[in-house]
Amino acid sequence: MKVSITDIRSRCAAIFRAAGVSAPDAEIITEVLLETEMRGVFTHGFHRVPYYINCLQKGGIQPRSELTIVQDTPSRALADGEGGLGIILSYKAMQLAIEKAKKTGVGIVQLRGSHHFGAAGYYTGMCADEGLCGMAMSNGDVLVAATGSRERTIGNNPFSFAAPAGKYGKMVYDIAMSYSSDKKIIQMAKEGKPCPAGWIIDKDGNDTTDPAEYEKGGVLLPFGGYKGYGMAMMVETLAAALSGAAMTRDVHAWNVNPDQNGNVGHFFMAMDVTVPDFAARMEAMITEIKASEKAAGATEIFYPGEIEARKQAACLKDGMVDVADETLEAMAETEKSLHIK
Amino acid sequence: MKVSITDIRSRCAAIFRAAGVSAPDAEIITEVLLETEMRGVFTHGFHRVPYYINCLQKGGIQPRSELTIVQDTPSRALADGEGGLGIILSYKAMQLAIEKAKKTGVGIVQLRGSHHFGAAGYYTGMCADEGLCGMAMSNGDVLVAATGSRERTIGNNPFSFAAPAGKYGKMVYDIAMSYSSDKKIIQMAKEGKPCPAGWIIDKDGNDTTDPAEYEKGGVLLPFGGYKGYGMAMMVETLAAALSGAAMTRDVHAWNVNPDQNGNVGHFFMAMDVTVPDFAARMEAMITEIKASEKAAGATEIFYPGEIEARKQAACLKDGMVDVADETLEAMAETEKSLHIK
Repeated sequence: MKVSITDIRSRCAAIFRAAGVSAPDAEIITEVLLETEMRGVFTHGFHRVPYYINCLQKGGIQPRSELTIVQDTPSRALADGEGGLGIILSYKAMQLAIEKAKKTGVGIVQLRGSHHFGAAGYYTGMCADEGLCGMAMSNGDVLVAATGSRERTIGNNPFSFAAPAGKYGKMVYDIAMSYSSDKKIIQMAKEGKPCPAGWIIDKDGNDTTDPAEYEKGGVLLPFGGYKGYGMAMMVETLAAALSGAAMTRDVHAWNVNPDQNGNVGHFFMAMDVTVPDFAARMEAMITEIKASEKAAGATEIFYPGEIEARKQAACLKDGMVDVADETLEAMAETEKSLHIK
Repeated sequence: MKVSITDIRSRCAAIFRAAGVSAPDAEIITEVLLETEMRGVFTHGFHRVPYYINCLQKGGIQPRSELTIVQDTPSRALADGEGGLGIILSYKAMQLAIEKAKKTGVGIVQLRGSHHFGAAGYYTGMCADEGLCGMAMSNGDVLVAATGSRERTIGNNPFSFAAPAGKYGKMVYDIAMSYSSDKKIIQMAKEGKPCPAGWIIDKDGNDTTDPAEYEKGGVLLPFGGYKGYGMAMMVETLAAALSGAAMTRDVHAWNVNPDQNGNVGHFFMAMDVTVPDFAARMEAMITEIKASEKAAGATEIFYPGEIEARKQAACLKDGMVDVADETLEAMAETEKSLHIK
């Protein structure tokens, strides 16, 4: 249902405040979730609110979401989130990385003791909005099979990169490591549709196009085979091994163990641009690629993040955002549990 | 044919010296090519020697391969290779990045005016050998279709990440953006074999499993669909847009235009490790993943770079490296053209 941006914003912020989050922090998480929702990334938008609140209520997430700086140098910092809200901690960590990049050309902030950080592309987008390039990564609970394995061996570790792109605004690349989210596969099973070959294996590690095998012990496969698996390993290394966070099976599935600190790890980097005509160069590259001959059936060639940016612009123009009815209902339930209204 | 490492090393170095490369630089490029060959990455090993020499002879590559520093700060540098040999320039650029990382925690060196840089994993491996994490990227001449395009719109931009891994030596992730190299597809066409669905499209942008369509104007597809395409855009941005190198169609195919400076761009990053038990953490992660239950048909689960490391170790034990007969013949031809022997 389309709802007013103003209304959903104040509802969301009130929910987090009622769960013990400070007013400024509640605003941060609300803005991140709202932008994510407007960009059409529903899986990481308001849909998550009840999960975060559940963790706050059960003690797995702390309402205080401040960076405790463990190590600090002009271009690097290592911080501990001490179990706070991943989105708020990540926003603050990327702010710190941006500050360092503006002073020294590059800023890296590694964060441990964090939690589910929502849409990785929000944080890299913060860099692009400041005229910088950015990277963001997070590990997570195990969901994806290593190449050759039939077990959930590694997280579906999100990775994002963004750059300012002149008249195109910003290029935002934001991916996870499996071909498809588990949600999409579960939905396909409900609808009795086959899933494409290569998306999942069954519990014995055989290829299957039957999405129902997923909930019987099947596993998500990494995108592009060993190339996606290796990328998941890179993210696990930078976000977790390098920060001191929990790794692979030691990460608590935040929606399965809402009472336990996930100790998720992230990696944030901001870099200034070193050539004076960078925005013009990005424009030229994107213009050329968008103008290339289209393949049979394609109506347009998009740069990374273009589809999402259009959705966001349409919402901002309308002052309205389309939120799934079940998400709105779940938010209403959460409000009730927090005695709001 | 198996040849002695000592012999092939001195032959290769002599070739580069005869083409005007300084003795120390000839040693650098020889070591990089030798290690790449030992690791089984034949496409980027000695096979390339005649191509590089051809470019040196035709003027598209300059024998002098020194970094001209354009910008320099404690954690960043931008350098111009002024048309030198990509491998030698890249080795020097990563050395500089490592130096900066050892002083400030992170070192980024961007390089323009370079050329084909060989195997990206060599440079990140240099970082891992020094106890650091590393990233390396390069753009290249257009070979891969953007998602929705039927043209060669973007380079097959290599990306590598490496980290020290305790008793496992180093983890080296090293990929290009297509499912398969063009060489492999051309070989399949010669053998009359079909290629897997999703690897290429024909000249009209239709999916095809006939590898012969590739040389009729077909195009390589990015691995994992839009995820690989977006990664190619990230590499193009960091390696080229950010360094001032040529971008997309302005990059000269180094083996098609041997008389023209490719003006290829690269991005190198070295980072020190911030937790004291990093090596132990990497070991634990890799041990756990390798021990996970194997899928049907899998004999072992490998970490990125493990297969290559085993090949290299076997060569070093033997003192011999297996070089394709046609590569050895091409090297002999090159020696003849340079009046060696």
